[in-house]
Amino acid sequence: MEAKAFPMNGGDGAYSYTKNSHYQRAASYVAKEMIEEAIADKFDVTRLSSSSNTIRIADLGCSVGPNTFITTQNLIESMERKRHSQDCTKMTEFHLFFNDHASNDFNTLFNSLPLGRHYFAAGVPGSFHGRLFPKSSLHFVHSSYALQWLSKVPEDLLDKSSPAWNKGRIHYTNASEQVANAYANQFAKDMEVFLDARADEIAVGGMMVVIMPALPDGVRPSQIMSGLFYDFLEQSVVDMVKTGSISEAEVDSFNLPLYAPTPKVMTQLVQSNGGFSIERMELTDPSSKIVGPLNIPAVVMHLRAGLEGIFTKHFGSEIIDELYERTLDKSAEFSSRLESCCKATQLFLVLKRK
Amino acid sequence: MEAKAFPMNGGDGAYSYTKNSHYQRAASYVAKEMIEEAIADKFDVTRLSSSSNTIRIADLGCSVGPNTFITTQNLIESMERKRHSQDCTKMTEFHLFFNDHASNDFNTLFNSLPLGRHYFAAGVPGSFHGRLFPKSSLHFVHSSYALQWLSKVPEDLLDKSSPAWNKGRIHYTNASEQVANAYANQFAKDMEVFLDARADEIAVGGMMVVIMPALPDGVRPSQIMSGLFYDFLEQSVVDMVKTGSISEAEVDSFNLPLYAPTPKVMTQLVQSNGGFSIERMELTDPSSKIVGPLNIPAVVMHLRAGLEGIFTKHFGSEIIDELYERTLDKSAEFSSRLESCCKATQLFLVLKRK
Repeated sequence: MEAKAFPMNGGDGAYSYTKNSHYQRAASYVAKEMIEEAIADKFDVTRLSSSSNTIRIADLGCSVGPNTFITTQNLIESMERKRHSQDCTKMTEFHLFFNDHASNDFNTLFNSLPLGRHYFAAGVPGSFHGRLFPKSSLHFVHSSYALQWLSKVPEDLLDKSSPAWNKGRIHYTNASEQVANAYANQFAKDMEVFLDARADEIAVGGMMVVIMPALPDGVRPSQIMSGLFYDFLEQSVVDMVKTGSISEAEVDSFNLPLYAPTPKVMTQLVQSNGGFSIERMELTDPSSKIVGPLNIPAVVMHLRAGLEGIFTKHFGSEIIDELYERTLDKSAEFSSRLESCCKATQLFLVLKRK
Repeated sequence: MEAKAFPMNGGDGAYSYTKNSHYQRAASYVAKEMIEEAIADKFDVTRLSSSSNTIRIADLGCSVGPNTFITTQNLIESMERKRHSQDCTKMTEFHLFFNDHASNDFNTLFNSLPLGRHYFAAGVPGSFHGRLFPKSSLHFVHSSYALQWLSKVPEDLLDKSSPAWNKGRIHYTNASEQVANAYANQFAKDMEVFLDARADEIAVGGMMVVIMPALPDGVRPSQIMSGLFYDFLEQSVVDMVKTGSISEAEVDSFNLPLYAPTPKVMTQLVQSNGGFSIERMELTDPSSKIVGPLNIPAVVMHLRAGLEGIFTKHFGSEIIDELYERTLDKSAEFSSRLESCCKATQLFLVLKRK
């Protein structure tokens, strides 16, 4: 079965992902230098391109841009520099594959492809929880802020007879250990499938960079920004049950399929797959390149662009404005609790295909 | 500059290309057996897939489906048969590239990809009048009913001071020799660019099959069905100038960028490119698999789906219904004149990369 798709808001309107992905962009600037280093130190462009004179790059979970274009441009520039440092005189061509669910707005993506780009572009529809490319056909895979999406809501969360039934909650942030375990098990299954597929697709010596929200070892889910945000969203949802805008049953049957693993868990999953060596694993502060204090309403708008689809699908579009207004009303409290949060929550992971 | 795009009608409504492409489908059945033969006789699957265990196939001008899925499925089945006949035991994977202009409705295309397909799919946005893929990366290229679209309207047709000014007409079918020459020159330029790009992209021994409307040598443009249809459309447009629905200037500044070459011209263009050998070139009757007489209103609806975009862009959407109603009103005359038309107007061309 195709994994569940929760596309970002398409088009380019006020609530579109295109217009509300600057937080993610700031986060990707933090990663930019680390990617450049990984390519300079550990990506053998010359050898990998020797047979076909082509480097094939995939961005998994690319959404609709523009971040994916900025990232892929940086990748190519880093690889060109590496190629020159290797005194490679042969002409190398770059083939870029932009992947996301088939429900992603590829029309917007394709119509915003940079003019004068020095690469060949293709869109690849489908879940990365499964094979997307021929065997050993890729040389570099990038995935930013996509792997936190589970392929589905763990079934136990919806089962009234299960100890993991997540009544009255929408996430594991403040939930029982059983709920947290159900999420963790689903993430482990998803990563197993993901890593198996990528191990098939990436040529020996090829590289994969994964950037995603993570939970520092020993920190509680409510002590990081994403957890805090889900907590506030949950409070808004519960308030709306009280005022009658949403029914209790609707909340009980809704869970955000989002997970932030610890570095320890990720290490175990990669090792158990066995196809990759871990070249670098690091937690950084994704907001470290943002000058001045975080603009909470902007962060909420950003998170709205990413989550609106899944809320709309379950609760209907008519509750969305109220949900986000109620969450925005809590900006001051959000801001104050954010201060004591752990900031190093962006996992930067470099894997190399053995 | 990106070539002009005139997308087929998207979505799946009453006038959509999806719902009105059965005439083209019938035409592609005629080609199906010929493609199977070409692959069986002349496509060395085993050798071409030996280095990467992958066969890469592109459908250029794929539109939104479903024809492209039927065709590509046939291609893969033919190649699998060839592989077995060659006693090839290695596993071969197929990578399919669906290409059309960036303005094509790729969202519809991606959401109608066949479930359980045995190939990896990618969409490639951009004009095939230029490079789309890395060097020598393709093994088989298919293009059906796409190359008749010129990359642009020849400029002389719009130039009042030129002998090729196409006043009062919308095509070369009944126009002056100068107009016909302007079209022919544009087609020659487009084919030069197209063949240069494909010669770069197709690996040695790779194959290209082109299916498109053509004019049998020695036949006049008005003696084939497409020419006849443009003639009737032109009459409708001229009638609408008389009733005031369209201005004379609007007609003078409009020309259908469609061209049907003769086999002789195609031969010359392929030979002048030099990258391909002509393995087969044949004219067939695209309606030969349609049982009973042609349903003229259905043909007009089919042609409407293909041309509505370009008429709307120039004349505005409000004239479309009247234009096609007027053309449908001429069905009886269309039908009678069609009888004396030359039927063998589908060019089937098999090229092999030298």
